[in-house]
Amino acid sequence: MREIFQQDLEQVGNDLVLMAQKVRSAVTDATVALETGDLALAEQVIAKDREIDSLQDGLDAQCVTLLARQQPVATDLRVVVVGLRLSATLERMGDLARHVAEIARGRMPEQALPEQARGVFADMAAAVRTVADDVVALLEGHSLELAYRVMEDDERLDDLHKETFRLMLAPSADTSSLTPQELVDITLLGRYFERFGDHGVAVARRILFLVTGEEAVKSGIR
Amino acid sequence: MREIFQQDLEQVGNDLVLMAQKVRSAVTDATVALETGDLALAEQVIAKDREIDSLQDGLDAQCVTLLARQQPVATDLRVVVVGLRLSATLERMGDLARHVAEIARGRMPEQALPEQARGVFADMAAAVRTVADDVVALLEGHSLELAYRVMEDDERLDDLHKETFRLMLAPSADTSSLTPQELVDITLLGRYFERFGDHGVAVARRILFLVTGEEAVKSGIR
Repeated sequence: MREIFQQDLEQVGNDLVLMAQKVRSAVTDATVALETGDLALAEQVIAKDREIDSLQDGLDAQCVTLLARQQPVATDLRVVVVGLRLSATLERMGDLARHVAEIARGRMPEQALPEQARGVFADMAAAVRTVADDVVALLEGHSLELAYRVMEDDERLDDLHKETFRLMLAPSADTSSLTPQELVDITLLGRYFERFGDHGVAVARRILFLVTGEEAVKSGIR
Repeated sequence: MREIFQQDLEQVGNDLVLMAQKVRSAVTDATVALETGDLALAEQVIAKDREIDSLQDGLDAQCVTLLARQQPVATDLRVVVVGLRLSATLERMGDLARHVAEIARGRMPEQALPEQARGVFADMAAAVRTVADDVVALLEGHSLELAYRVMEDDERLDDLHKETFRLMLAPSADTSSLTPQELVDITLLGRYFERFGDHGVAVARRILFLVTGEEAVKSGIR
């Protein structure tokens, strides 16, 4: 019985890694679709979000079953509780990648982003891809060092998010040339990327809890 | 022992109701602050979000302790698992109310919303206040009928959200008079209200799970 339980716990960990890998593919492909106007790629991200959703459903059911049948305590209990919470976080990250792909698809064959916004969004895209890589690594390795770095790195995304507002609102020639559709898209895309980063921080906080049993120092992120 | 456990479970339910009541106050006050430009009220919503956050922390700790010490099964287990999930959902609803208050505060002494957007946002505000009322009632009474109605009612918020885009993007005299700041604010506020409704649906789905032990039929909302 005990051995089966350890296998079940490992399965929770493996499923989280699998979800995180799918989220990484989704957000990578979504940012590429946004930058290149690749319709097929955008469609693929949108379609594949269901795989992430159904992984979450399976993981949640598995965690509830584990709680009911095995009544885990201590570290084992933390694995299950964190599994429940992280599955929800990863599912949201998948949704956000899908939302980016939906905006990309909605403007094709044009690119959603106007010329003057492409620089900051290239930086944001690089930052969220790093977050996605880090989340996979966090779930694979449970590194505290990496967890702290992810929390710190989030400031970069927040700064870039602020830059998108400056781009839209600063009184300059650049701004006045933005159409309402472009302003709406920049606002939503900036928000999606910023939220993706927040969820990365939430993963880092959960890993800290998993490893140490302590909640991370509050940083405005849950 | 058994009796103490029932008290603990009741406490989880009571804390969820308390969180939901605070969320209802927050979103009601935030929409009033948005409509009236009441700075003190906006500040209050922003400050009080911490109370919701700390209720979440307490509730989560309580649920984990219950799982560890009491090893609940069947309905009792569902109460604890749903408690963990709903505390996160309610915390996000509080954040969204805070975000609305932050936008309201940021534009004062002006009103954030331009004249031509006030009608649709008055309707959205009424809809989210209904969601907030329903969430309190759901947590108090666990009514399946109400849970289904909340899921259906969310279409109204989605329709109003689409209307905000029409308002911004339809080629008309109204649109061209919107400033970049107004376009950004309308985009974000529409998104916040729509997400608030989504979280209301998530609460309804959790209540269905709590009462029936079955996940609600998927409706794109988790």
